Order: sequence, then C-alpha cells, then structure tokens
Amino acid sequence: MTKVGIVMGSDSDMPVMAKAADILEKLGVEYEMTIISAHREPDLFFEYAKSAESKGWKVIIAGAGMAAHLPGMCAAIFPMPVIGIPMHTTSLGGRDSLYSIVQMPTGIPVATVAINGGANAGLLAAKILATSDPELLQRLKDYSQELKEQVEAKAEKLAKVGYKEYTK
Amino acid sequence: MTKVGIVMGSDSDMPVMAKAADILEKLGVEYEMTIISAHREPDLFFEYAKSAESKGWKVIIAGAGMAAHLPGMCAAIFPMPVIGIPMHTTSLGGRDSLYSIVQMPTGIPVATVAINGGANAGLLAAKILATSDPELLQRLKDYSQELKEQVEAKAEKLAKVGYKEYTK
Amino acid sequence: MTKVGIVMGSDSDMPVMAKAADILEKLGVEYEMTIISAHREPDLFFEYAKSAESKGWKVIIAGAGMAAHLPGMCAAIFPMPVIGIPMHTTSLGGRDSLYSIVQMPTGIPVATVAINGGANAGLLAAKILATSDPELLQRLKDYSQELKEQVEAKAEKLAKVGYKEYTK
Amino acid sequence: MTKVGIVMGSDSDMPVMAKAADILEKLGVEYEMTIISAHREPDLFFEYAKSAESKGWKVIIAGAGMAAHLPGMCAAIFPMPVIGIPMHTTSLGGRDSLYSIVQMPTGIPVATVAINGGANAGLLAAKILATSDPELLQRLKDYSQELKEQVEAKAEKLAKVGYKEYTK
Amino acid sequence: MTKVGIVMGSDSDMPVMAKAADILEKLGVEYEMTIISAHREPDLFFEYAKSAESKGWKVIIAGAGMAAHLPGMCAAIFPMPVIGIPMHTTSLGGRDSLYSIVQMPTGIPVATVAINGGANAGLLAAKILATSDPELLQRLKDYSQELKEQVEAKAEKLAKVGYKEYTK
Amino acid sequence: MTKVGIVMGSDSDMPVMAKAADILEKLGVEYEMTIISAHREPDLFFEYAKSAESKGWKVIIAGAGMAAHLPGMCAAIFPMPVIGIPMHTTSLGGRDSLYSIVQMPTGIPVATVAINGGANAGLLAAKILATSDPELLQRLKDYSQELKEQVEAKAEKLAKVGYKEYTK
Amino acid sequence: MTKVGIVMGSDSDMPVMAKAADILEKLGVEYEMTIISAHREPDLFFEYAKSAESKGWKVIIAGAGMAAHLPGMCAAIFPMPVIGIPMHTTSLGGRDSLYSIVQMPTGIPVATVAINGGANAGLLAAKILATSDPELLQRLKDYSQELKEQVEAKAEKLAKVGYKEYTK
Amino acid sequence: MTKVGIVMGSDSDMPVMAKAADILEKLGVEYEMTIISAHREPDLFFEYAKSAESKGWKVIIAGAGMAAHLPGMCAAIFPMPVIGIPMHTTSLGGRDSLYSIVQMPTGIPVATVAINGGANAGLLAAKILATSDPELLQRLKDYSQELKEQVEAKAEKLAKVGYKEYTK
Repeated sequence: MTKVGIVMGSDSDMPVMAKAADILEKLGVEYEMTIISAHREPDLFFEYAKSAESKGWKVIIAGAGMAAHLPGMCAAIFPMPVIGIPMHTTSLGGRDSLYSIVQMPTGIPVATVAINGGANAGLLAAKILATSDPELLQRLKDYSQELKEQVEAKAEKLAKVGYKEYTK
Repeated sequence: MTKVGIVMGSDSDMPVMAKAADILEKLGVEYEMTIISAHREPDLFFEYAKSAESKGWKVIIAGAGMAAHLPGMCAAIFPMPVIGIPMHTTSLGGRDSLYSIVQMPTGIPVATVAINGGANAGLLAAKILATSDPELLQRLKDYSQELKEQVEAKAEKLAKVGYKEYTK
Repeated sequence: MTKVGIVMGSDSDMPVMAKAADILEKLGVEYEMTIISAHREPDLFFEYAKSAESKGWKVIIAGAGMAAHLPGMCAAIFPMPVIGIPMHTTSLGGRDSLYSIVQMPTGIPVATVAINGGANAGLLAAKILATSDPELLQRLKDYSQELKEQVEAKAEKLAKVGYKEYTK
Repeated sequence: MTKVGIVMGSDSDMPVMAKAADILEKLGVEYEMTIISAHREPDLFFEYAKSAESKGWKVIIAGAGMAAHLPGMCAAIFPMPVIGIPMHTTSLGGRDSLYSIVQMPTGIPVATVAINGGANAGLLAAKILATSDPELLQRLKDYSQELKEQVEAKAEKLAKVGYKEYTK
Repeated sequence: MTKVGIVMGSDSDMPVMAKAADILEKLGVEYEMTIISAHREPDLFFEYAKSAESKGWKVIIAGAGMAAHLPGMCAAIFPMPVIGIPMHTTSLGGRDSLYSIVQMPTGIPVATVAINGGANAGLLAAKILATSDPELLQRLKDYSQELKEQVEAKAEKLAKVGYKEYTK
Repeated sequence: MTKVGIVMGSDSDMPVMAKAADILEKLGVEYEMTIISAHREPDLFFEYAKSAESKGWKVIIAGAGMAAHLPGMCAAIFPMPVIGIPMHTTSLGGRDSLYSIVQMPTGIPVATVAINGGANAGLLAAKILATSDPELLQRLKDYSQELKEQVEAKAEKLAKVGYKEYTK
Repeated sequence: MTKVGIVMGSDSDMPVMAKAADILEKLGVEYEMTIISAHREPDLFFEYAKSAESKGWKVIIAGAGMAAHLPGMCAAIFPMPVIGIPMHTTSLGGRDSLYSIVQMPTGIPVATVAINGGANAGLLAAKILATSDPELLQRLKDYSQELKEQVEAKAEKLAKVGYKEYTK
Repeated sequence: MTKVGIVMGSDSDMPVMAKAADILEKLGVEYEMTIISAHREPDLFFEYAKSAESKGWKVIIAGAGMAAHLPGMCAAIFPMPVIGIPMHTTSLGGRDSLYSIVQMPTGIPVATVAINGGANAGLLAAKILATSDPELLQRLKDYSQELKEQVEAKAEKLAKVGYKEYTK
C-alpha cells in the first residue's frame, strides 16, 4: 500500500528526487511520484494535497528550488509530516531554496534535509514509517550496517595501499 | 473603486504594510487591507486570491516574512501584478523573506521591493495604476517633487548651520 | 508512555526547547526533557542516544547552537527520526547552527526546522507519531483549526477598527 | 505603439534581456530594446530616461550586473514602473546585482525580479499593461494555461514511463 | 581653496560623514559638505557632479546606504577620484551598500572604504592630495605618529595595571 | 616561565582576550599580554613578533577584528603555533574577522577558534603546551571533568524542578 | 619617472594585476611591478614598503586573495594611497579577499576596488595622479570618451541587426 | 614514533588530506591516516578517539565537509590539540563545513585552518610538535626559507621577462 507521495515542481528536479525513490525501493516502501507545480497549476496542487490523506499516505516528500513554495504549501494542507528537499541553484547555491523551505512559521513545520539531499529525504520518510513498523525499522538498521561496512572497506583499502596509491 | 488589495500573513507585519496604505491614501488610491495566511488557512487564501480579479482589483500588495509564500502564491492565482514586501527577520535579516519572494520561477513574477519596503510597495502600485490614469500620474509627480524639496531643505539647513550643529 | 525525547546541549537553549514541550503537552504527547552535551560529556551522550530506542522512544528532538553537533550525533545512533532545532546565534544569526544541523551526509538525515523553531519541532514530532495514531492526528487537526481561527479573528478586528487603530 | 523600453548597460546582458523581448513578442506587446550605460555615458542615459514618457512608454525593463545602478537611475527619472533584472555574477552569484537593484530607498521603487529573470520581467511588464488592456490580460491567461499544460504533460509522461526511464 | 566635496544622499548618513569632515579639518584640508540625492533630485545631482571639476575639486567623498548609487554616479561624471563610504544597514548590515559601491564595472572605479568608514574616507582624500602636497604629507605622518602613540599609551597602561583592572 | 604571548590590536578586544588569560591562569600557564597594532605601529609589531621565540614563547594568541591582519602577520614571523581569535563586528557579525584570519595561504597556518572565542583560544594554547607537559595535560582533564559536572548539575536541576520552573 | 608600484603576493594573481599595468601603459603612467609575499617574506616586504616613498612612488596597487593582508600592510607603512584588489576565490567567491582588504580600521584606509578589478585599480591610480597632472587628466577623459563610443557602437549594432541576430 | 593521527569521514576528502600527509612526510613527522565516519560508525569512532592518547598521539588532524562533526567530536574526546580542515562544498562553498568546525562552544576548541587547507593543517601539527622538538623547529624554518626562495625566484623571473611574457 502506498504510504509516501513524492512530488516535485519541475522535472529538472528529478535526478535528486530519484534518489529518494531509490532508497524507498531498496527499503521496500511503496510510493507514488509525480510532478505538480504549486505556482503553475494551483488548483491541481490543492486537489493533490487535499486528497493525500484519504489515499492513505503518511508522508509527503516535496522538492523545489529557488522560491521553493511546494513543500510549505503541502504542509499547509496535509496534516502529517512533509519532508522538504531544497534544490541547488546556480546563483545562490541553494540558499534561496533552503531558506524558503526551512524557515516556516509556527504551526506549519517542514522537515528539511540538506541541499539536494534526495537520499536522506527517502530515509527520513522510512524512519517516520518505522516508528510503527518494526520490520521496516530492521531494514533501516541493516542499511546503516551496510553504510558502516562500506566505510570500513575503504579504511582497510587505505591501510593496505597507502594514500598515494589510493588517490591515483 | 477599490483597485488595490493589501494582504499580510500575520498582524506582526502591519507596521510595514501600514506604510503602503499611507502612501495610497495620500495619492488617493482606494485599497482594501486584510490578514490572510496562506499557511494557516489555505482555503480562505485561495478564495481570496481567486476573487480578487472579479472585485475589480488591478494590483495585490502582499507582505510576508521568513519562508514567505504569500506573495508568490498570490501571483500563482491572480493574473495581474503582485508586489511582494520581504519582512525583516531577526535571525537572517530578511534574506530568507527576500529570497522566498524574489526568486520566483519563470511564469510567475513577483514585483519585489526592498526589505520592509512598505512605502515603496504602495508607490509601485500607484505607478502601475498610473500607466492608465494621467491624474494619478500627476499626483505621483507632485509627490516626487515633495521628496525633492525635502532634500533641498535639508541641504539648505546644512549649508546654514554646518554639520556640527546639524548633528547635535 | 513517553515517546519523545527532548535534549539540548546547554540550558541557554531552554526557552526555545520549552516551546516544543509546551506543544507536546497541549497535544497530549508524553516526553522526557534533559540537558546533555555531546561535546562535554560524550560518554553520557552515547549512553543516552543508545538507550533511547529501548526506552520506547520514537522521536528525538535535539536543539543546539553554533557548531551544533547534538542533533546529527543523535541521528548517528538513534534509528528513528531526529528533529533538529538550530539556535539563533549572536554573530552569525543562526546560520552556523542551521548549516551544522541540516547539511547532514547521505545516510544520516536530521529533520531540520527553522532557526529557534521550538514549537514547530514539537508539532513535527506529533505529526510523526500521528502517522500511526488517529486520535493524535485529530488533535493536530483541531490545533490547526485553532490557528486558523486566530488569524480570522485578527482579520475581523482589522476590518472593524482599521489599520491605524490596530497598530496604535 | 511601443509601450515598453528594454535597456541594458552592457551587451553581455543580452541573452537574459532577450528572454524579456521573446515574451513580449509572444504576447503581442511592442517594445524598443537598446544598450545604454548610466556609468559610461551619463548624458545619453539622462536623455534616454527623460524622453521615455513623451515617447508613450509605460514601463521600462532595465537589466544590470554587479553595482547595478541602471534600474534605480531609470526609476529616479521615469515616473512609471521600472522593472529591474539583477544579472548573475561570477564572484557573488548575483547578490551584488540583486541588492543594488532591490534595496532602493523610499520614494524610488524598482520592481525587482529573480536573478537572470528575463522572462519574468517581460511577463511583469505585460501584467502591468494588462491592468488596462483586457485583451492582453486574456493572452496572459492563455499563456498561463500553456505553462500548466506543459507541466501536466510532464506528469503524464512520468506516470507512463516511470522515473528511471524519464531520467535516462 | 576647497579641494574636496563631501556629499551624502540622506541626512541620516551625517554622523558617519562628519567623521570625514573632522579628519579633513584636523589635517587642514578645505572641503564643502552637502546633501544631494541622486534618486530624488537627479537634475540637481547631475549639475553638482558636472560642476565639481570647474570648482577646483580634486576628490569627492560620497556616502550612501542600501542600493547606494551616489558614489558610482559621481564617478560616472567626475573625472578625478571618488571615495565611497558604504553605510551600515539594519537588515543586511551594510553588505547591500558595500556591494553597490565597490562592485563597479570596468572604467568607473570607486575607491571604497569600510562600512561606516567615515574617518578613513577623509584620510584617503588627504593622502590623495598629499601625492602633490609635501606639507600635507607631513601632517599625515604626524597624525600616524599620534595614532601610534595612543596604542603605546594603552599598552603601557595594560602593563601597569593588568587586564583585570583595565577592563573594570 | 612565560610560554604564551597574548596580543590584541585594540583595547576594545580586551574583554574577549581576558577570557583567554583567565583560562591560562586557571590552568597555571604563564603568559604575557599586550596591545600592539600591526597597522598603526608596524615597526613595533615586527620587533614584537621577531623577539617572541628568543623570549622562550611557544604559542602566540592574537585577537583582531574586521580586516584582522594581526594573527596572520604573527604567523608570518613567529615559527611556532599562532592562535587567532576573530572578533565579533557590528556590521558583518565577525565574518570579516573570521575570513581574514582563517583563510591563510599555504605555508602560514593560523589555528582559528570561534568568533569571540577567547576561552577556547586559551584552552587550545594549553593543549598545545600539554603535548609535552603531562601535568598540564592532567589539569586540562580536570577542567574537562568540571565542565562535565556543570552540565550534569544542570540536568539534575531540570529533572528535579521541570522546565517551567527552570526557565522562570 | 616611476610613480606607481604594482605588487602581488602570488604569481597566480598576475592575470588580474596585468590589467592594471595595461591601463597604466595606455595612459602613459610609469610603474614597477613585482611579486612580494607579506606572509612568506615579511622582511623583504617591509623593506619594499618602506623604500617606496623614497623611490618617488605616489601610489601602490596591491592585489591579494583569501586572507588578503598585502594591501593593508602596505597601507600601514606607505604614507600615500594604497589601492587594494580583492582576488576571486573558489570557495568564497572573493568575499574573504574583499572583507580582508576593505574592512580596515580607522587610520589605515585601503582604496578598494571590485573583486578582480585590475583595470579599475589602474584607472584609480591614474585618477589620483591626475589630481596634479592636467595632461594625464586629459588622457583619462579621452579614455572615458572611448568607452562611451564603444557602448554607442554596440547600441547602433543592436538597432541595426536586432537582438536575435546580435545574440547569435 | 607516530605522533599525529590523520582522519577523514569520507574518501572523497582524501586529495585534501593527502596534502597534510605530504607535508608531514617532508618534515619527518610520523603519522597514521585512516577513514572513520562519526556518523556511520559512531562506535568505531569513539574507540578511535579514545585510544588515540594511549597510542602516544599528540595531535589529530580531522577533515570533514558539510555538517562536519568529525573534528569537533574528536576534540570532545581527545585531550590534546585537534586540527580541523573544512572541506569545500558545491552548494555552500565550504561555509557549512567551516562554521560546523570553527564555531565550537567553550571548552572544546578545534584549531581550524582554511577551507581545503590540507597543507596548512600538516604544518600546524608540525608547529605544535615543534614547541618541544628543536630539530623539527629547524626543519620548519628551512621549509619557510624554501617558500621564501620560491617567491623570490618568481619575482626575479617577472623582473627579467616582464608581465606580458610571464602570463603567456
């Protein structure tokens, strides 16, 4: 059953949003991904955000860049957690996206992750669901173990070959 | 006939928004001022923005702080000019408000003025209306003349008393 | 049953953290609040973060300022959601805290709220728990309705008394 | 009849300014585009700005980078709306241009759009003219509809092919 | 004979500009100080900047805040050195003034000093004149000696009383 | 025997520098504190920096604000560690001081601490000396223990009185 | 006779410093260019700065990047104008260089130009010398005329070919 | 005997960390380099930091990017100096890393060097050890002499070939 909605305002955001989807697939969490612009199609957007709860969704992951209103507007309508991903921007490096997403007024939080932090948004959604899903929690722990082993493998390689060889 | 809507998301913005109203009153432009939060009452906000054109409004002045979505969401719905006023904020000095308002994506411009620039928002609204109202244009020119005379008076005072006396 | 841990690195952060506790109390969510410094007492901190899951906690809210490591280190150890509150700072306005909390590397998300966003951190924790608690979800909706009514009351007052009277 | 002047201080700004012209052409708004430097040819600039009203212009779109004085100096002379486009800059990303254009003192507003926001400047000029031109307003609404349909088409494509295929 | 013009756009800048005048008086350099707004009275400003050379001026010191155009526009017209003083601003701390003054395009330099650096602007003007005035150069050296002696006196006091007494 | 020099460019920096001295006194490390301006008395400064090694000093702590050259110039002359303290500044919050101190070119490191980080500069100096002084190292560990106990006492107080009482 | 010294701390700054030299050559001003690091060879640097006056120099142009101390240290020793050029930097875009050069304390001004503003530094040096050299002043006016004609030629080309052809 | 630990959180940091190792090798200082993530393997990290003193290490050099916790967490556990290297980041240029490392709270200093300042971190470690190792101090002086001679050689080349040839 789909529990996570992934939404972006522009298909230029898709490479970042795809990382959220990749993680959710890896962790066995069903999601639905779409493109909706709060600015260019406000009616459709409202419909989308209002119907999310009745579709059984528990989390929305919204990514946007520049004057990034999509995550905040989702949070104004959807009553459960909204995760915001600020997109990197050429001129301001993503500070514009970050401030537009994280600096929400009292009453309407957006759970903000790092600039271009698609994978972490997917992980955070899974962690939220894992608060009531012990099996998912176990899969998250397994994933953390994988990450740990990747670092250990690199440390071993470095110990073995030395940094001059490693950086070649 | 009311041609300008003034809207803010929080009554803490009112001292700045009042300056817009003061200028419009001085220039004889009718306006309607209200408080609507796009975040806390999205339904009311949509209704407000959608009905603005049928009420005969030609310009909306929207002020907001932090992750300031109100001006951009007005611009997503209202088809004529929306003027955005970024509010000063304690932590980021209003950069958050400024970026959230000015960095709009293609298709949805917001005419942004300076941080806390309430008076200039009112003036810009009047200038927009003056493109088809020669009498208002004349009043705007008279107002510019006033500003000029104020500076001249200060320059004369300085010439007369000297800077040491002036700054006492 | 306690489901939320609230932790800060310094008691100077308490006025902000108190807002998270206030919201949780209002929404009927049990929490435990303490002061632990990841920098000054790393052993105690590790113990704290490691035992959180076995105590039945589902969410940790961590606030910190400057080089704010507490939220990220909690997220390195606790497998469920960690919410980070960046504290305002005199010199950098809280940008240091914000960047130190939100810019987490892949694998270790921190759900970041606004600078000094204590109340929103509490709300976000409640929203996370509400993904599996329909009664809490209803209380969150009631709270949103309250916020909406507060804005409506202000709009009515403005319509009645006018902005000059309102700002007196 | 020409109603919009487009002016830039340097021909390096032309790719951005061209987007304003493109939109105006699409919307059937006549404009005149030129290059004038307020810094390198102040006399010509003054002449240009002073004669704009008598030529029947209603809006000036001015683009400039770095210490961007052209929009503000236009606004000091031309009594109707001036739209400012801050150019992206290598060292400061366009913050220098943005601050030099948006932070105007009381009395002299510049309607500022996003960094490199050429298309939005053209749209804003059209919206200003549309306050007294119902046919132009209709063309603006048609344009908004086009933008909406473009997003819908992308959403449909994503629904059909999936994100892995989409991002290939 | 007056060789330095001191100009500001607003009398709110006078406390900073006064420091430039104080230094010039101390060094025996004649100056003329006035208030002229390039934005509010562009005609007067042009007249002012154009007549400066014929009055025998060698340097103009111009101070301005926010979108600070005055120094750059002086430099566009006056062929000898223009010194710019960026004013501190509440929201952006003077970054807006600094960028608007220092980031001038090729061909039109403004010799920029620190934010609120009134005294240094006066000193720089004197140093420029001292390139052809050996007596003024000597007075500048005497002034530097004074500054040095002030620091030495403080160091002696510290050595004598200790820092605990010093900071009481 | 004096092993640490503490130097500042202006006596306005003394409240911050005093914290470095306080820590060194507490840890039993002898130091010499003085005021020398690299800008106003370059000859004295050179003499100071050159003679430091022959006086037996092992570390210099240098504090400065704005275009803070003192720490870097010390590091250009003194061959052992120089610790730099960036002073908070009104306009730029200390970013100017921080960048002027930390961004040193290859070959001339300055060990930079936080803005206004006087106490940490003293601690860092002690830690450097402790690399060859086991007794000092023990005193540093005792000091860390003290800090830890202070936090524990606060946590106990909070557990006892609750946050509402605590923040009264 | 050489009147201008051009100095940089690293030969990586030479492309920017070369623009200053190019302008001075064009304007017939003799200069001497060298590389001296205040950080890596403080003794040589002191010698250089101290001997500048006796060599008959009237202006020093100093360029530096990151924690850019060279211009400020020149100004601490040389009694006539020092012009500072902040170099662009990869990480901070030149803000570090700019702040390290422009934010000088009272008593030691550096005439700062734009980031990478080599040509303007050369022009500013010439303008300083032109305060006592009418022939150089005339050459500066001729140069300004050239710049103006370049812009006029571009405006004519645009008027003739249109922007679509121009930007091809 | 190994006296310096070099640690990074990710092998993407290795090109910068390698510069620290290169300098230490050149100066004859033994070190041990590894990869340990405080976020992905907190247990291993704790073990690493706790055992450092007993292995005889006197200094740890830690590099990290974004929300860079590794240096600060080392400093929370290891009682002698920790040197932090902030990594350059795409979106924020390394400001996030810099603030996360340098803005440490009282009691836990990190000796911070420039963004990507690997070589300076190695030099600073050597300078710290040189406070009790006269031979190492001499090697550091020899290295400084080398740097000086490199600059002198460049100055000679410039004097000989001229800047036009030099920059070809």
